[in-house]
This record gives sequence, structure tokens and C-alpha cells, in this order.
Amino acid sequence: MTVYKAPIADLTLALRTAGLAEVAALPGCEEVSDDLVAAILEEAGKVAEGVLAPLHTVADRQGCHLEDGRVITPEGFPDAYRQFCEGGWNGVPFDPEHGGQGLPWLVATAVQEMWQSANMAFALAPLLTAGAVELLSHHGTAAQKAFWLPRLISGEWSGTMNLTEPQAGSDLAAVRTRAERAPDLGPGMYRIFGTKIFITHGDQDMTDNIVHMVLARLPDAPPGIKGISLFIVPHRLVDDAGTLDAVNDVRCVSLEHKLGIHGSPTCVMAFGDQGGAIGTLVGEENHGIEYMFTMMNNARLGVGVQGVGVAERACQAALAYATERVQGPNVVTRGPGSVSIVHHPDVRRMLLTMRALTQAARLITLATAAALDGAERHPDPVARAEAEARAALLTPLAKGWSTNMGVVVADLGVQVHGGMGYIEETGAAQLLRDVRITPIYEGTNGIQALDLIGRKTVRDGGQALARLLGDMRVTRDKAAPALATALERGMDDLEAARAWILEHADAVTTQAAATPFLALAGLVVGGWLLVEQAERAPQDAPGRAKQAQTVASFFVHQLLPATSGHLAAIKAGAADLLALDADGLASA
Amino acid sequence: MTVYKAPIADLTLALRTAGLAEVAALPGCEEVSDDLVAAILEEAGKVAEGVLAPLHTVADRQGCHLEDGRVITPEGFPDAYRQFCEGGWNGVPFDPEHGGQGLPWLVATAVQEMWQSANMAFALAPLLTAGAVELLSHHGTAAQKAFWLPRLISGEWSGTMNLTEPQAGSDLAAVRTRAERAPDLGPGMYRIFGTKIFITHGDQDMTDNIVHMVLARLPDAPPGIKGISLFIVPHRLVDDAGTLDAVNDVRCVSLEHKLGIHGSPTCVMAFGDQGGAIGTLVGEENHGIEYMFTMMNNARLGVGVQGVGVAERACQAALAYATERVQGPNVVTRGPGSVSIVHHPDVRRMLLTMRALTQAARLITLATAAALDGAERHPDPVARAEAEARAALLTPLAKGWSTNMGVVVADLGVQVHGGMGYIEETGAAQLLRDVRITPIYEGTNGIQALDLIGRKTVRDGGQALARLLGDMRVTRDKAAPALATALERGMDDLEAARAWILEHADAVTTQAAATPFLALAGLVVGGWLLVEQAERAPQDAPGRAKQAQTVASFFVHQLLPATSGHLAAIKAGAADLLALDADGLASA
Repeated sequence: MTVYKAPIADLTLALRTAGLAEVAALPGCEEVSDDLVAAILEEAGKVAEGVLAPLHTVADRQGCHLEDGRVITPEGFPDAYRQFCEGGWNGVPFDPEHGGQGLPWLVATAVQEMWQSANMAFALAPLLTAGAVELLSHHGTAAQKAFWLPRLISGEWSGTMNLTEPQAGSDLAAVRTRAERAPDLGPGMYRIFGTKIFITHGDQDMTDNIVHMVLARLPDAPPGIKGISLFIVPHRLVDDAGTLDAVNDVRCVSLEHKLGIHGSPTCVMAFGDQGGAIGTLVGEENHGIEYMFTMMNNARLGVGVQGVGVAERACQAALAYATERVQGPNVVTRGPGSVSIVHHPDVRRMLLTMRALTQAARLITLATAAALDGAERHPDPVARAEAEARAALLTPLAKGWSTNMGVVVADLGVQVHGGMGYIEETGAAQLLRDVRITPIYEGTNGIQALDLIGRKTVRDGGQALARLLGDMRVTRDKAAPALATALERGMDDLEAARAWILEHADAVTTQAAATPFLALAGLVVGGWLLVEQAERAPQDAPGRAKQAQTVASFFVHQLLPATSGHLAAIKAGAADLLALDADGLASA
Repeated sequence: MTVYKAPIADLTLALRTAGLAEVAALPGCEEVSDDLVAAILEEAGKVAEGVLAPLHTVADRQGCHLEDGRVITPEGFPDAYRQFCEGGWNGVPFDPEHGGQGLPWLVATAVQEMWQSANMAFALAPLLTAGAVELLSHHGTAAQKAFWLPRLISGEWSGTMNLTEPQAGSDLAAVRTRAERAPDLGPGMYRIFGTKIFITHGDQDMTDNIVHMVLARLPDAPPGIKGISLFIVPHRLVDDAGTLDAVNDVRCVSLEHKLGIHGSPTCVMAFGDQGGAIGTLVGEENHGIEYMFTMMNNARLGVGVQGVGVAERACQAALAYATERVQGPNVVTRGPGSVSIVHHPDVRRMLLTMRALTQAARLITLATAAALDGAERHPDPVARAEAEARAALLTPLAKGWSTNMGVVVADLGVQVHGGMGYIEETGAAQLLRDVRITPIYEGTNGIQALDLIGRKTVRDGGQALARLLGDMRVTRDKAAPALATALERGMDDLEAARAWILEHADAVTTQAAATPFLALAGLVVGGWLLVEQAERAPQDAPGRAKQAQTVASFFVHQLLPATSGHLAAIKAGAADLLALDADGLASA
């Protein structure tokens, strides 16, 4: 069983590296002092360690089940959820007008990481609610906001995202769930009919009501992506005062048997089996996909943070095991007797790789969050637009690269445990099973790579990326020479990739190059932020300086050089990928 | 649920690439004609597809359990085992004098791959028996061979390896299981006391008897690795005629709850709880570890083949899903409507990466097997010694690199399935869970990397590796220019790594460099063999030529360039790895 200790000092240093001072200077962030941040991290750390982490293993073993048509979550989840909400943790980044704490995304993201480390299956519930809050905050009417937001932000009710259908996964244009106008029920009312799959926390026993955000298509809607509308469909109908009424025509008809996150119910949801699930429209008809996209940056960042959170816990578990497990002689001191395996250089390599990748991924998620804050709050419209472009550019890295690294780190964690890593009791395998969903959901990492190379690089002529490279040069110029030289090599590869892509910007070539480009960009951005952190640490966190400097040096000298391989893959082009069709790829 | 189709044509081409003609020319291999090999692969393929593969999913779901102190394997295993043995498949590579088929390791390895693809949990049982056969063939007395080998080779009885103890995993010097001479039981008899863990198929219900090969220490043995002896400890005692007598003082006291291979019982074995398990010595006292090492090359190759086998099945499953799953428009043709995802360039990248890594890993295992055949059978002592050095050099790659690639391929297989990959029903996740043990057992891949760089490279002054590079040059010289140029870049990196390592041959530096060196060497050897295969395919297997050429081109242009990153990691040295001790690596 793994134990989790909230890494407050590491998160604090990472927050500063990612731009806490700049975020604190934004309008509305006047109260975000170092002391306040310290207090928040400390308190959140206690909840993560004391309330959520103890349920991590038991949730995996018990899983969820259906009882009389309702989902029962693992023992302790409803009580933990109550404590979580009572502490105000459900509303950290949201509008104080509706009961939120009004904290910037940057701070909320550091807090979020602790929930994900402590108990990813549990923490999915508030993550989905946050998505619903985002949607309604941006696209709801004043009345909808006033009614739904306080209840979602407090956590009294939860929110879910109902997008996927059996034939509509990455391609939401294929959504078939049907909506019908229902003037008989009142103005602005609709009936919804259809089946949604992979609905996370689609049903649960932690809240009195569940607010489903549902994509569906009106009978007279245009075909494809521009004919999809977004509806609010509560599990229980409510009157204007919010009093709970009859159960709506929505139910969880089955639960998936998954590789991991057993504590998180993944539901098949049936809408309208008994005459129609009653819902109300968000915004205008046929603009549902557009609205979903405004929520996606945050949701994708949230999933990236899951990758980081699980990776952090895997680091802690592997180090604890390596420190306890005695096996073999000390090759460095050549002293007598056996030593714990943390003394073996190859085990050190695994542990340091885990640590370096986790910190790089963390810094990328925090830098994304800082950009989101700038995009929302910066008073200067040019700076705001640049922050928005930065957030858009970093989001596929925060999601795609950080979750890929989450899997790599959890996998190394299993390996550090040796044979014990394959035995479920140690918990190392659970971390790998849990985190393995993160490269898949909320847009597969293939989709993230296409987004990074297409919408975020080709579409703006590589401008946002050029500005990012400019920021990297500032760090390089002030960095210690050994770090600067190694970082520069990676930056050169990223610059070369950017130039090549802009010269070969057709859809086929860019799609073929997408995945190595994401891998390359993630390494360079991660390396940059680690070097920045290493340079700041002696002032910002002297006690963490040696680790920060070693991690940065290891990363830029031993992991970052992989960029040249990715650049070669990009430049190799699409020809070999297209040469073999399905028959050509088959075994024989 | 995944389906398995034996890849006969691919295996045939790979066998030829790996040196089937040379092996068939060795003494004792006169009967190994193309026709015979074709017939063997065909028949084995039928058993793999028809008998073993159908039990793959059910074995995962049912797992094993203890009933009245005995292990019950999944439904169908005992009957499948009976059919497997009746077909003579248990004895493919073994001495015909004791009932084996006498086939070379090269052919046996191709056959073995099909068992592992079809049902890795099942196929572990014969793999362990093969280890016992190897041990007794090399180190047993004439009487021991005559008694035990026919029963093990036929599969009437099974064999197991009892090495690991709670405190003795990678470091077998720490073995504490105790052996006492027992002259009261007769000459050459011993009593064994102790606990062994992680004993694969340590108990099962498929054979009448189980022959445990047990490492234990005599009271007057020297300390450490040179004080360990090897014993034969049968589950049931037997008289000289082989009649089964009383149950020995050996039992499985518990089963591990593992991430995967649920169909394979992983036992905690208690020896001597009731007065002593009765055993007989193999070879001389205190030479047990030495004997184990003669078996290890084969066992490690066998585990490498597991990596390949699971990877092959993952390729088939992912391609089948990608061919069926319709999602999104065709970016290449820009035609109307949606197409199956196999048409998307990024999905093609995943599928082609899986295919290329699987074939490279397969060729490495087969080349290792061909070297083992040369080492056992070549009439010229110089050639025999070179083959032995080649087998020794390739074994850690066959085990370490091929199993790492097995995990990478199975992981990509999950990703190709998207959300369905995370749901256990599709079987993609099972392949990942199953194969994840292969980088751990039979010497972790960290141990393999240390073996490759230390015993196999530094110790002989890099000679075996230099000869391997010489063989690569022959392939390069005859290859198409584009392949030759790309291959050469990888070879240059391997040569540079070799030179650097020989200049920095101290234990700490080589141990620090071990893992990137294994990664680098695996890529170059894999790339070389794929180019060799591509060059041979037009003559040897015209129907497979286009795939072989595309796979080789993709590999050398898009995967092989990763060598430069690994070379940089090697040359970065040990300093950063040693800079942080356990406290320094910790979160805070």
C-alpha cells in the first residue's frame, strides 16, 4: 500500500517558477499573497493526506456497483465528499459571487494535483463538476447561473459531461442523441432521448442531485458538428426554489469493468427510455460543440494534472521501496554487506528519471494554468491575447505530454519495486492501472498532438510557439553555462521542427508528424521550465536548490537529447506511414 | 476479446533472416528442411490458435485458487496441457535420446512464440519445465538424466525453478533455504527447509508430479554465492521405477494476487515444515549458482519471446480494432463520410510502430536462438566459441529489449483502442497486464543491462560487440542506399558507445550507463536485422516484401534515430545519478 505526503515545498517552488508573482499581480488576485498560498497548500495537503489518500487502495479493491438501479461508490466516498465540500474545496477557482473561492487557476491547479495524487478515482467527481461550472459560467443565462452555480460550486450537487456515444468518440459530429422541443412542459423545455457511454460519475451516492450536461441533436438541426446542442438534464427534477422533485428519465444502465480507477463509476447512461428526459438548453441551439470547447482547455489541463498527481505518488512509493529494500552490495563505496537498492546507480537512474519527468510535467501544467489566469484577467488586451494563445498552445502539452509521462513514471515505479511491483498489494501496479486512462480520455493524446501541430502551430503561422521560444531564450541567457548549452540544443530542435512544419503544412504531413512533435515540444518546454526552476531555487527555496539543480541537469543532459530522434521522425515525413494499408499492416 | 492468428509467413521469413540455412547445416540438424519447418509451424499454429488461444481470456478472468492446499488452474488448462504434451510440443528442442524432438533452438523459439501469443499464462508451465530439463541435461548424472528427463520432456511431470526468497531476489547470494545431508534416507539424500516466493506454476493440477529445482545452502557451506547447492525436490516422492509414493514435505501456502498472467499460479512454497522436504543433489555441493547460469540463457531468451509473443497478439488486436472502428473523415483522400481509424496517419504511426518493434524484437530473439544452436553444435571450435559469445551478447537484448518493447507495443495497443482499450472486455488491457511481468522476472531489465555492459561488453574488451558490428557492415553494404545510410548512423552511435564504455570501464560508470546502452544496442541490432530482412524478402517471401521494406524503412528513419539521445545519456556519466541520495531524491 502506498502512502502519500503532500509535497508542499516542491509545489511552492513550482508555483513561483510558473509565474505566481505575475498571477498575483492580476486584477482580482490581490489577496494571493505568499502566506495565503502557503496556508491553502497546507490545508489542502491535510485533506489530501488525511481524508482522500486513505481511501485510495480500498476504492480500487471495492470498486463501484449498481444496487436497485443506483451506483454505490466505495466505502467512505460519500463521507469524504462531504468533508471535501464542507472545506470549500469544490469551489477553489470559481466566482465568489456564486460561492467560489475566487482563486487563480494557478493555485487551484497545485491544489488539484494533491487531490489527484491522493485519490484519482475520487477526485474525478469534482473535476467533472468543475467542467459543468465552466460551461454554465460562460454560456448560461443569468437565471441559469444563479440557480445552478451555487449548488455546483458548493458541491451540494455534482456535474457530469455526457458527450460520448458508441459511434461518437473522438468524432463528436457523429452524436445521435435526440432532443425534441417540449413546449407542453413550458418555454425553453426539451425532451432528450439516447444513450451515452463512458460517463464518469454518471451516477453516484455522494450528492442529492446530479446535473448532466448533455450533447444532443434537434430534429431540424444541420448535419455534423454544427447541429449539436447542449442541454442541462438533472437526475432529479427541481422546482424554481431548488426543491427536489421526481426522478428524471435518466439512469445508469450499466458500469464498465475497467483496468483502473475502480472507485470512479464509468456509466452507460440511458436518457428518455420512459418518454423523455427533461432538460433545458444552454445558450443557443446548435452551438453545443462550441460551448464544449470553452470548457475543454480546463478539463484537459485537469487530466494533465491527473498524470502529474499519480506520477508524484509513484515517485514517493518507489523511493520508499528503494530505501527499504536491501539487495546487493554498494558498488560506489565497495563497502561490505548489502545495501538498500537506492544505492545502485541503475535504480538511481529510474528514480531520478521519475522525479525529473514528474517535475517537468508539473511545471507544464502550472505554466498552462498561469496562462489561463492571464487570459481571463490581464488588463492589457494584447497581453491577454498572448496569454490566451499561450494557454491554447500549452494545453495539449499539459494534457498529452504530462499524461504520457504519468504512464512512464508509474511504469518505472512498478519496475523499481521488482517482483513486488507486479503484486497488487504494494499498490505500484494500481498507480499504473489508474493513470493509464489519462492518455485516452478528454481527447486522446493523438487528438492532442493533432491540436498542437494543427490548430496551435500551423494555424497561427507558429507565432505562439515563436513567442514561447523567445521566453526560453531569456532563461537560457541567465542559466549556468552547462545547463544553457544543453537546453539550447533542445530549443534548436524545436525551432527546426517548427520551421519544417510550417514548410510542410498540409494536413496529411502534419498529422503524420503530430505525435513526435508533441514528444519533442514537451521535452523542450519541460527542460526549459526545469532550468528556470533550478535558477530560481537558490533564492526561492534554498532547501530544494540541490534537487532542483540536479534534476534540471539530469533532464537536459540525459532526457532532453531525445529531441533529435523526434526531429528525425518528423522530417521523415508521411510516406512510410501511408505505404501500408490495413492489409499491408496485417500479420500473415 | 482478442483473437490470435499464427503468423506463419512472418515467422518463416524471420527464421530465414535469423540464419535458418546456417543452422540447418549444423551437425544433428540434417532433417531441418524448409518443408519440415513449414509443417512444424503449421501444426504448432493450429494448436496455438485452436487449443491455447481460446483459454486466454477465460484464464485471466478465472485465475487460480487454492483448494485443500492444492492449486486449481483455470478451466480447460489440464485438458489443454494433455493435448499439448500428446502432440510432443513439450519436447521440441530436447535430446531425442530422452524423448525430445531434437530440433534446433531457432525453430523451437519460433514455435515458442506462438504459445506465448496464444496464452502466456499457460505457456509458462512448459517454459519452466524446459528450465529443469536444461539443468538436468547439463549437470545431472547419467542416472538422473535417465530417470527425470523422459518424464519432464514428455510433460508427464512438470518442472519449476525455486530461486527467490523474500530477502533474495536479484541477489541470490542471500539465499537462506537450508539443506541438510540425510544419510539416514540413503546415500546422496538431503532434507530441505525454507520458504521460496514467486514460484511460477509451483503447484498446479495438470501433472501427477512436479519436480522442483531448489537452491539451498548446506550448514558447512561457504558464505555468499559460492555456498549454494541445487537440489531436485519432487512434489511426490517416487521409487526407482517412477511409481508415485507419498507427498513430499512441500506445499504451496499461498498464491499472489497479480497485475496479470492470472492463469499462471505464482506460489509461496514452504519446504520442510513437517520435518524436511526430501531431495537429491544436482552435480556437486556448492555449485548451484553456476548450474543455474547455464540454464539462464535459455530462460532469459524464453522470457524475451514472451515479450514478442504478446506484442504480436497486441498488433493483431489493434489492427483488427482500427480496421473496424469508424471515426472521422479521411484526411488523405478527403472523401465524404467517416472511415475506419486505420486510415488516420497518427493511428498508422501507432500500428506501424507496433509492427516494427515487434518484428525487431522477434528477430533479436531468433538471432539469439541461432547463436545458441551454433554454440551447441558447430563443429569448428572457433566458430563455436564465437557463437557462444554472440549468444551471450544477444541474450540480455533478447530478454531486456524485447520485453521492454513488449510493454511498449501492448501499451500502444491499448491506446489504439481508445476508450475501449481501458475496458477489460476488449482484451487490450489484459495484454498490457500480462506482458508487464516480463521486464521484471528472470533477472530484471536493470540486471540485463548490467549484464550487457559489464560481463558481455567490458569483460571481453568489446570483442563480441565488434564482431556484431562487423556483421552489420555486411548488411549495410548490400542494403538499398536509403536504408544503409540510416542504419549506419545507428551503427556509428553504437560504435561510439562501445568506445566510450571501454574508456570508462569502472563499475560505477558502466552501471550508470547500462540502461541507455541496452536501449541503444537494442535499437541498432533490431534495425540491422530488419534491414537484413527487407533485403532478403523479395527472394525469400515476395508476398511479404512490401511490408518488410516499409517496416525497415520506418524503423531506421523514425525509431532508430533515438540512438543519439541514448548515446548522450551514456556520455553524461554518473555524476547526476550520484548527486542525490535517498533524502535528496525525496519530495518535500
